[in-house]
Amino acid sequence: MQNFVFHNPTKLIFGENTIEVIGKEISKSGYKRILLLYGGGSIKKNGVYDTVVKSLKDNNIVFVEHSGVVPNPVLSHANEGIELCKRNNLEAILAVGGGSVIDEAKSIAAGFYLNNLWDAFERKAEIKDALPVFTILTISGTGSEMNPFAVLTNEYEKKKWNIGAACLYPKATIIDPRIQMSLPWHQTVNGGIDAISHILEYYFNSTVQEVSVSVSEALIRTIILCLDKLQVNPNDYPARANLAWAATLALNGLVGSSTIGEWAAHRIEHGISALYPEIAHGAGLAVVFPAWISYTRQANPSQYERFAKNVWNSNSLDEALAAMKSKYSSWGAPISLRDLNIPKEKIGEIAHNASRLGVVGNLLPLTEREMAEILELAY
Amino acid sequence: MQNFVFHNPTKLIFGENTIEVIGKEISKSGYKRILLLYGGGSIKKNGVYDTVVKSLKDNNIVFVEHSGVVPNPVLSHANEGIELCKRNNLEAILAVGGGSVIDEAKSIAAGFYLNNLWDAFERKAEIKDALPVFTILTISGTGSEMNPFAVLTNEYEKKKWNIGAACLYPKATIIDPRIQMSLPWHQTVNGGIDAISHILEYYFNSTVQEVSVSVSEALIRTIILCLDKLQVNPNDYPARANLAWAATLALNGLVGSSTIGEWAAHRIEHGISALYPEIAHGAGLAVVFPAWISYTRQANPSQYERFAKNVWNSNSLDEALAAMKSKYSSWGAPISLRDLNIPKEKIGEIAHNASRLGVVGNLLPLTEREMAEILELAY
Repeated sequence: MQNFVFHNPTKLIFGENTIEVIGKEISKSGYKRILLLYGGGSIKKNGVYDTVVKSLKDNNIVFVEHSGVVPNPVLSHANEGIELCKRNNLEAILAVGGGSVIDEAKSIAAGFYLNNLWDAFERKAEIKDALPVFTILTISGTGSEMNPFAVLTNEYEKKKWNIGAACLYPKATIIDPRIQMSLPWHQTVNGGIDAISHILEYYFNSTVQEVSVSVSEALIRTIILCLDKLQVNPNDYPARANLAWAATLALNGLVGSSTIGEWAAHRIEHGISALYPEIAHGAGLAVVFPAWISYTRQANPSQYERFAKNVWNSNSLDEALAAMKSKYSSWGAPISLRDLNIPKEKIGEIAHNASRLGVVGNLLPLTEREMAEILELAY
Repeated sequence: MQNFVFHNPTKLIFGENTIEVIGKEISKSGYKRILLLYGGGSIKKNGVYDTVVKSLKDNNIVFVEHSGVVPNPVLSHANEGIELCKRNNLEAILAVGGGSVIDEAKSIAAGFYLNNLWDAFERKAEIKDALPVFTILTISGTGSEMNPFAVLTNEYEKKKWNIGAACLYPKATIIDPRIQMSLPWHQTVNGGIDAISHILEYYFNSTVQEVSVSVSEALIRTIILCLDKLQVNPNDYPARANLAWAATLALNGLVGSSTIGEWAAHRIEHGISALYPEIAHGAGLAVVFPAWISYTRQANPSQYERFAKNVWNSNSLDEALAAMKSKYSSWGAPISLRDLNIPKEKIGEIAHNASRLGVVGNLLPLTEREMAEILELAY
């Protein structure tokens, strides 16, 4: 096991009817003026917006609204948020939404102290400070609610890149699984597959790290079980709650801190959704990950056999990959580039886009050529 | 799943040659004068003491030594520590040792701000503040290095009781698994069984909390695997590291925060070691837990069947309990009161001692009578 530091200071408030404490939580931390960041109108339909606004007002917190965060959030909108924070002397950010909203909140929080936000994504500027971020999670999947990472798309340059810094851990996160009952099914699925994919980014590289591997298997099996239950009954509260808690644990350092992440499948997927921003991240991962597994299988065969046996109850990796794709497909997720309506001739462009940050992966480092081969497999 | 808050702010620094950073870690936090708390001479034999002292001196940290913490640490020694802190204007505590040293450090930290430390254990005083505690863990097991709990023995009244408060989370903890290679085998075993027991305190009550239960099974199986490996080769670093990481996760809120703990077996064991302070906590738990499981089996049969199948690969609970005792015994752990040299006629006194804090347990609340029946089973 490699040396590591595990230090996750986010306060997670989890359960039914917890959203109403947000005002008190922010107030206790000493902040009086905040940016309220959210996406489209879903939080106005499901009552979350009203609960949040009432709680903020009850606690005398002044807020400036910045709505319109899109899935695969974009640089221009984050820059507008930074301007709003500066112009209004705001002290903190409250993100209400899924991973996209939280990622943009972190980007704004970091950008507040930078000359040029995108420089941090280009690794040209270091993130040393950030506005405090609070979150109310409405879609489980990205894990952004309890980690220090953010992904943003530079829509001018078609780059979907990431940042990470200790100061970007949310101060507090609220997850009320009940509000996720109203999600469209495909969003629940995309979130679950995103969470599975986060765990898998650490799984294959960690042959001797028994804690990480065995906990990973437990979390993946739990997510599969919960999605199966929710497909039958979207209002199954224990399934919603366990899916949400597992998705948070999937990328909060628990399975990742003691091992090295691959992040190659994610990089390839970012190549897809940078060019096709209408494709949800989880949907892209559903397509890319089985192909990545198949392509890299020789790099650590015993671990891949373990994956087949312990996650899919299969006797071979081929059987496991068939089971994985069959399961994803049964949930209505795409399992090929064709399912995503991406023509084969676009593969080169996607691989080129995905490789612009350089070689990725430790188990099997991938250049543009290998990425293209994986995309061929995914076609 | 019940509502919960998960907020564990301890910074965990894990791996080989990490002890030497302690001075810098304390210094970065702004503390200049500390209490250096430890037990007997083992840290002087294995070089940990020298590494710590050098690191403190290199960082200009003044320290006052308080050695002689005993297994099952006692109130009088903690009170001496409080006096040392007050007399020398100390700002923080560094605990170097196993759970006993860390628990006493937390007790001193809380007692510094109380009129009478034991009042907190009696639930007569609230712990609102504490000196910051840093820890260097030398024996994995209690989990105290990353949680807000402490157990102390009032040797005058023969009470082994506990406290817990958010301010008692260690600020930072260092775990170098390599230094545990020099532990006597029975200490490694006691620590492992203590960690398994912590997980089990949450396991049987959590029927529908899939995340907690499945992660619990992964951790228990990992601890068993690591102990088996260490019995063959005490210098197996990955096994030491995975055992240590699993033991920390066993009681840091990961499996416990989303469910209700029983803590009945622990309470009974505290009744034993309050009267027999020479009996290690892990050894007492090895005796009590199988009996508690057997006694409470009707309270949640499906969960007990799951335990048999997923942890012990057994078809029935009887088979699983036999496997559990056989495994514990193969490690050299005691599995009966007889193995602990406790005469049968002491059972009443132990049960009486254990029940002085009142009824314990949620799945099956236990009074003195039921505790005595469990101890009979354990005889």
